[in-house]
Amino acid sequence: MVKIIVDCFGGDRSPSANIEGSLMALDCMPDVSLVLTGDSDIIAKELEGKKFDSSRIGIVHAPEVIDCNEKPTDAIRLKKNSSMMKAVALLRGDDAGEYAGMVSLGSTGALVAASMLRIGRLRGVIRPAFCPVLPTMKGGVIGICDSGANVDITPDYLQQFAIMGSLYMQKVYGIENPRVGLLNIGVEEEKGDNLRKEAYALLKNTPEINFAGNMEAREALSGDFDLVVCDGFAGNILIKSTEGACLEMLKKLKTDINSSFINKIGALFMYKMFMKEKAFMDYQNYGGSPLLGTVKTVVKGHGSSKATAVMKCIEQVYKTETGSLNSSIEQKLEEITGASV
Amino acid sequence: MVKIIVDCFGGDRSPSANIEGSLMALDCMPDVSLVLTGDSDIIAKELEGKKFDSSRIGIVHAPEVIDCNEKPTDAIRLKKNSSMMKAVALLRGDDAGEYAGMVSLGSTGALVAASMLRIGRLRGVIRPAFCPVLPTMKGGVIGICDSGANVDITPDYLQQFAIMGSLYMQKVYGIENPRVGLLNIGVEEEKGDNLRKEAYALLKNTPEINFAGNMEAREALSGDFDLVVCDGFAGNILIKSTEGACLEMLKKLKTDINSSFINKIGALFMYKMFMKEKAFMDYQNYGGSPLLGTVKTVVKGHGSSKATAVMKCIEQVYKTETGSLNSSIEQKLEEITGASV
Repeated sequence: MVKIIVDCFGGDRSPSANIEGSLMALDCMPDVSLVLTGDSDIIAKELEGKKFDSSRIGIVHAPEVIDCNEKPTDAIRLKKNSSMMKAVALLRGDDAGEYAGMVSLGSTGALVAASMLRIGRLRGVIRPAFCPVLPTMKGGVIGICDSGANVDITPDYLQQFAIMGSLYMQKVYGIENPRVGLLNIGVEEEKGDNLRKEAYALLKNTPEINFAGNMEAREALSGDFDLVVCDGFAGNILIKSTEGACLEMLKKLKTDINSSFINKIGALFMYKMFMKEKAFMDYQNYGGSPLLGTVKTVVKGHGSSKATAVMKCIEQVYKTETGSLNSSIEQKLEEITGASV
Repeated sequence: MVKIIVDCFGGDRSPSANIEGSLMALDCMPDVSLVLTGDSDIIAKELEGKKFDSSRIGIVHAPEVIDCNEKPTDAIRLKKNSSMMKAVALLRGDDAGEYAGMVSLGSTGALVAASMLRIGRLRGVIRPAFCPVLPTMKGGVIGICDSGANVDITPDYLQQFAIMGSLYMQKVYGIENPRVGLLNIGVEEEKGDNLRKEAYALLKNTPEINFAGNMEAREALSGDFDLVVCDGFAGNILIKSTEGACLEMLKKLKTDINSSFINKIGALFMYKMFMKEKAFMDYQNYGGSPLLGTVKTVVKGHGSSKATAVMKCIEQVYKTETGSLNSSIEQKLEEITGASV
């Protein structure tokens, strides 16, 4: 049985989306059991009348909720009884061995800080990094590591992001030998700032990954790369501008369709297609951002996640656990450190 | 008469797109005259049989072309007879006063280096910066400064980008009091790396601009900002991932439409709308990237520019000249330096 903790508060649709998603996960993954953290009365009420295997679900009472505007370090220190910190406490407590990891839709800052300071890093990891995925036009996905946990970095961070991200894409998305791109402002080796130039040389000399050279931002969705490594600032710009452009375009299409009768008739013919495009672009279908490199897997779901997204986040923890991601990361990092000594 | 130089080589569709665009510009702007640089035989042949006012067009012979893969400093030094370097030479020669600026579709690296080393900076400018625009969903545009000329910067660069970009958006796009965003990974004041935190404080205390706070990448096309300032690395990621996402989505729509008979029928109804969307997204309709802060206006067009884009680039030089952009930049920078002394 793979035991996963779900922080039931902190999202825009919490706790109902979290709980509904949890029940979906129990249906889809028969060897998963869940522990829900949050106000136990509210959770119990939400579960009332629903059909589920009660032997595979537990509740840990946590009456407080961390607000997105709270200072992360304050939140960790002062909100020990929050749904997020209770979940974190379980992952570092005496029974930590029982749990594979946790899912939260709450404050990113608090979650990163708590993961670093309370759960801790895997052996050899400099800094954990987020690795969400975007859908590509060839029907696959591309991982973006880091997408926002580390803004000031050095080239060896990028080497580690490449290793952790490659293993993640392998274990969770079944990509055998992920093609790794270095996010840069040109494809030639000598392009970019000092960080990128040094990182290029380092990645080229890392046989543990399948380095495919520099990747320009406009190639992100092309399907020619399986993973792109970058500092958290650039990764955040990449993922948010891509999401923003897609959403704004869909919005514009909708407005334009509604502005004319002829367009509306056309859209009726294409209804199925448009629904497919919408689903394709909808991050709800791609789960959350795992924080790679922490002792226990932590998946951060989007604040506005619906039940499906929560279920996908739980599945991400499940797959990293069944794929032994964390021990693979430790092993690979050890090989590299050994090789470079 | 506003005299503008057009480098006729170096683009994917050169020289025909450059020359056709030049003739379009003569038609649209009656007080513009042009000097075309490049192989004079080829240019003359291209002009043959076309109708234009020959008193407003001149040719300066330059038999060489700079290749995109050449090292910029080598190109400047060794290719003095190239179409680009001849154009640059005119802008710094004895008759420099005659010219408003130049347009080129050639090597970005060579153009930036030549602008810095040969044409020179305006008084008070630390470093020139690119400022292309993207269309917003409210029907306007947003300027992105810098989009790639400066990858390693300090906060005072961002202050200058904000000032130069604001004046540019005012003079060329008629935006009275441009709302300036600082590209960042969150909207709160304390977000981002050290560069962003310091820049935020500096921009907040720059009354010469209309600072609207941090802008997340997903807001770029929303229409809530008129200018976003950023280092050239992040700006490059922003603009290329936005372009990439829009282009990939249009491609996907096209494939999906062609994959089913019903969709094709629907698309026939919506043909006009789709053509409008395509035009809306097409950078050909938005000209090129001006390099702000050089003594003469230099506009870099996309390598794959067609005639319309070349015409728009010429119009950009024209508007910066008639709007006295450069003297306004010098004056505003002087005010700030004066105020801070």
